[in-house]
Amino acid sequence: MTLDEAQAIVSRGPFLRWLGLEVTELGPDSISAKARWREDWVANPTLGQTHGGILAALIDFAADFALLGSIGHPVPTIDLRVDYLRLAKQGDLIAKGRVIKLGKQFSICEAMVLDESDRLLASGRGAFATAPKGD
Amino acid sequence: MTLDEAQAIVSRGPFLRWLGLEVTELGPDSISAKARWREDWVANPTLGQTHGGILAALIDFAADFALLGSIGHPVPTIDLRVDYLRLAKQGDLIAKGRVIKLGKQFSICEAMVLDESDRLLASGRGAFATAPKGD
Amino acid sequence: MTLDEAQAIVSRGPFLRWLGLEVTELGPDSISAKARWREDWVANPTLGQTHGGILAALIDFAADFALLGSIGHPVPTIDLRVDYLRLAKQGDLIAKGRVIKLGKQFSICEAMVLDESDRLLASGRGAFATAPKGD
Amino acid sequence: MTLDEAQAIVSRGPFLRWLGLEVTELGPDSISAKARWREDWVANPTLGQTHGGILAALIDFAADFALLGSIGHPVPTIDLRVDYLRLAKQGDLIAKGRVIKLGKQFSICEAMVLDESDRLLASGRGAFATAPKGD
Repeated sequence: MTLDEAQAIVSRGPFLRWLGLEVTELGPDSISAKARWREDWVANPTLGQTHGGILAALIDFAADFALLGSIGHPVPTIDLRVDYLRLAKQGDLIAKGRVIKLGKQFSICEAMVLDESDRLLASGRGAFATAPKGD
Repeated sequence: MTLDEAQAIVSRGPFLRWLGLEVTELGPDSISAKARWREDWVANPTLGQTHGGILAALIDFAADFALLGSIGHPVPTIDLRVDYLRLAKQGDLIAKGRVIKLGKQFSICEAMVLDESDRLLASGRGAFATAPKGD
Repeated sequence: MTLDEAQAIVSRGPFLRWLGLEVTELGPDSISAKARWREDWVANPTLGQTHGGILAALIDFAADFALLGSIGHPVPTIDLRVDYLRLAKQGDLIAKGRVIKLGKQFSICEAMVLDESDRLLASGRGAFATAPKGD
Repeated sequence: MTLDEAQAIVSRGPFLRWLGLEVTELGPDSISAKARWREDWVANPTLGQTHGGILAALIDFAADFALLGSIGHPVPTIDLRVDYLRLAKQGDLIAKGRVIKLGKQFSICEAMVLDESDRLLASGRGAFATAPKGD
């Protein structure tokens, strides 16, 4: 799969489009993408930080799409776990995903979200249904 | 805290406003809210299902805001875990949160997301930083 | 499956035997068992509390064996998540498991560990590989 | 803290002693230890694999004790998450822990369990209560 093909899959989904995702790297078992900040992401207008739900969505996206290189399409998420490490200030975000275990029935991937200064804001993992037919 | 006060806290946050959240019940250790569907939530335009990132955001919101009755304000999420149980078809969603353990340093809450027919779509838990000053 | 059949499965495994597990209830999607305290469980000899690893093992056991009534045998754990809620003092423990979602590829179950006074010490969840052939 | 001091903390706890833990490396934010296989660990006598509860206990141990270099003593586990990646055959196990985020109220650590051939069997994470007084 090429970067353009991955971007095409990302861009056809309204939510991923809303996240402003641009795929910047695609490996056989990894992906990197940039998410374009929008004011709708703000949790608390005084602090201005991005809501944890956005970070969780980016972890889910990057962990799932790390499977693109091997599976060729997004798969159902079984479960997702996110650790919040630092306040995400206003600004674009980088999401990176990596396959930990590729399995015939399910796969485990991890992902992290960084700010533009490469500081780790959140990281996490998910289990994904990679059986030929999801359950 | 009254329902109106809880709604005021929800409504001042751009992301929670974007989720179209309306608080419908508030107990000393629980909350229920309705989230108004919007097309931006769609993951895959063919299936039309709501993206898991939206469900994760609703789990985070409901688990955190279950603490409103005791803590009086939202607190930082330490970590979040979400199980995806059923495809979330197009439509408004109900998010319900409940405190499992209220602690002086951290608290554990659980939450679920249901569709309008009361079918459980996702459930999960979070650990929240309830020390007087977040870390 | 009867209680005796469930107990026979439990008793054939060295580790579950070491946990001193006695199955006390078995439903179509639930299980309860008692674990007999042993001194090897102690984390810190000054406090005398049971180690969190024992509680995690009991959560794993009870969540997995909640599937006995439907699947008929233990299945591989995909992932496990445990919340520690209270210090587990010296004494026997009760583990209760319940199926949240029974699926053809994977299932989600939850479990809790209580002390003999019925106080909740830990609770958690797991995803289990319930495809005919594990991955 | 020296390796001998870390080993002394490990050896005073009955459960960690039962796990046969020998600390082999200690860094400012990491730890490695070897766990000596015992037959009590076996899940299913036909397969002979080590029970997932043992792997969970080792993940909890290594993640927590990765904090020894900075905190100087074990701390309460808030929550634990474990991914099971491969069947753990009979044999000694290696547990490695690493601090991801050291915080004043809570810290996030990750850990992995490998077999003697350096194959990754399980990995996971925990949140730990590192406030001066646990909650």
